[in-house]
Amino acid sequence: MSELNFSLKQTDSGSSARRGVLRTAHGDVQTPVFMPVGTAAAIKGTTAAQVEETGAEIVLSNTYHLMLRPGVETIEKLGGIHNVMAWEKPILTDSGGYQIFSLEALTKINDNGVEFSSHVDGKNFFIDAKIATDLQNRIGADIIMCFDQCAPYPADEKVLLEAVERSIRWAGECKEAHANPKQMLFGIVQGGIDLELRSRCAKELVDIGFDGYAIGGLSVGEGHEKMIRTVEHTAAILPEDKARYLMGVGTPADIIAAVRNGVDMFDCVLPTRNGRNAFAFTEEGPMRLRNSVHINDTGPIEEGCDCYCCQNYCRGALRHYFNVKEMLGPILVSLHNLRFYQRLMSAIRQKIEADEFAGWSEEKLKKYKNLYH
Amino acid sequence: MSELNFSLKQTDSGSSARRGVLRTAHGDVQTPVFMPVGTAAAIKGTTAAQVEETGAEIVLSNTYHLMLRPGVETIEKLGGIHNVMAWEKPILTDSGGYQIFSLEALTKINDNGVEFSSHVDGKNFFIDAKIATDLQNRIGADIIMCFDQCAPYPADEKVLLEAVERSIRWAGECKEAHANPKQMLFGIVQGGIDLELRSRCAKELVDIGFDGYAIGGLSVGEGHEKMIRTVEHTAAILPEDKARYLMGVGTPADIIAAVRNGVDMFDCVLPTRNGRNAFAFTEEGPMRLRNSVHINDTGPIEEGCDCYCCQNYCRGALRHYFNVKEMLGPILVSLHNLRFYQRLMSAIRQKIEADEFAGWSEEKLKKYKNLYH
Repeated sequence: MSELNFSLKQTDSGSSARRGVLRTAHGDVQTPVFMPVGTAAAIKGTTAAQVEETGAEIVLSNTYHLMLRPGVETIEKLGGIHNVMAWEKPILTDSGGYQIFSLEALTKINDNGVEFSSHVDGKNFFIDAKIATDLQNRIGADIIMCFDQCAPYPADEKVLLEAVERSIRWAGECKEAHANPKQMLFGIVQGGIDLELRSRCAKELVDIGFDGYAIGGLSVGEGHEKMIRTVEHTAAILPEDKARYLMGVGTPADIIAAVRNGVDMFDCVLPTRNGRNAFAFTEEGPMRLRNSVHINDTGPIEEGCDCYCCQNYCRGALRHYFNVKEMLGPILVSLHNLRFYQRLMSAIRQKIEADEFAGWSEEKLKKYKNLYH
Repeated sequence: MSELNFSLKQTDSGSSARRGVLRTAHGDVQTPVFMPVGTAAAIKGTTAAQVEETGAEIVLSNTYHLMLRPGVETIEKLGGIHNVMAWEKPILTDSGGYQIFSLEALTKINDNGVEFSSHVDGKNFFIDAKIATDLQNRIGADIIMCFDQCAPYPADEKVLLEAVERSIRWAGECKEAHANPKQMLFGIVQGGIDLELRSRCAKELVDIGFDGYAIGGLSVGEGHEKMIRTVEHTAAILPEDKARYLMGVGTPADIIAAVRNGVDMFDCVLPTRNGRNAFAFTEEGPMRLRNSVHINDTGPIEEGCDCYCCQNYCRGALRHYFNVKEMLGPILVSLHNLRFYQRLMSAIRQKIEADEFAGWSEEKLKKYKNLYH
């Protein structure tokens, strides 16, 4: 595993922002990075070539969904997740924990693992740290995640503590079970917004030792300020020479604030989910393409945007596609939003390189907080 | 209009097949040609760039759908249909006649024109030859079609005759009304499978004089043999120096048989409609991607196919996408089918050029008739 690592290139003098490179078995990833989400092995509505064209260097897929359909055995027979997704660059899989704990069909949970019924056909499954790791070893992503318990927000102190203790114990079991040297294994810090619990969890995980560390259990209803306070606290106690990944986050403001606090990796469904709902991200704020104000508008979603949608289609056409329910509307706005996020990350990386990130990000943060909440 | 024309490059020695070039205001089209259908100004599920990548040189859109949504005034304000579709190559619009006469909401029809209610909101519209031409002048396609009456199959002699007489009268009115010199105007021969009526209609239209001639009113239930007999008869009496377009056709066998009889242009929803339903065209016959036989199949839809789908995605992945209802399934199989049709047209053109079309097409026709009916 010696060639799989995170290398810190530069740190910002005015904040904790970092510029780095994540070396994986499928190539390098420039950080800070945003990972489009391909829940069921597809970034919804887009081909791999289109996603690559948005500038994405790494994508995410969900173990929970993959294990149900098409099933891990099928993914193996199809040559692994890269083959299935027609994506030759890095891929990260989550452990399935988040989805399983969010499920209403969750039937039984104890220190050993979790029993749940599939949301597809009601079939029962048992999953524990060893199984979650084995599944991910076989799915074959470049970065895999420890099986953890994500507590809801708000949560009782007892529930939160239990989730942290289990996540720590399971992390150890995951590391022990991990059997694919081509994959990096990341630990996940839990603890809700309880900073002491976060410290404890982070410390224990670092003692076990992982290829990278995620901050999980956030963006579950606690709000931007509490989330960022937790991120600031947690990121600061994670090792400097490992990548830090804030799971499931977030809005442009969330991302900028987290980068200021030293986070390197992000994933979120917002660009594609919003895109399907005719919501476009722009520097001037949200644009809702179903709005009749756009009917005769010959301009692109965003003047100066270099995405395929903005380079070719006008707002009037997009408004029409949503109005008549043509798939092309969701496709094009998803592509724009994915590119918007990649342009944001690219600007972040450039500003860190130029050591101008602190001031720039303060302005942007203020602006985006106003525009997107 | 002197530069907009059809130029015959070569004729096949063993059949009536022709190799030509259609010169339009947005560039040349090599014939025989297949036009993907963009009913509502989008080839369903695909971007303009993806359609271009399949090799399409011209696409079709439907005046009836466009006049309802987004409306012709909006298309004008958006800079015309090329701008709306982000398609810089040639476009053809039908006149709307076919859709209007197929509508159950059709309220009134007489020699002057047609009254109908929109299938979208019930709003009443009146359309006649002059209006249909004006709408198409304003939509701005490179090739526009005369407003005609398409009789159902089977139809009473009287109904058929009335439809032919109206189509002839309206064709004259369309030519008179046509006011956009950048557009070619095609006449449409009607007459069902009545060869005498077809002759009469063709003769009258040729007397009026058009930039090209379509054979309409076929592929409405009469079956392959009757259709081709009608095409053979009709194409033979159309002028050699004008393009011949068989509307709404068809299967691979339909196309090959029609090319053998001197048809130059085709359009059909089959590649995209079938693609959305997981039906892929291949040289070995239909492949149904929902079939569980493909679950673990690492092969492409078609070995040797150069389409984006076959170059990147395996059958197992496609089967999975249809199974979990990911948009990517319909998108990818539509792209494959569009490319299948373009490869067919490309082979047809090459075989005519090499003067090997007669024998080749006989074999292909036999094969495709067996595979696709």
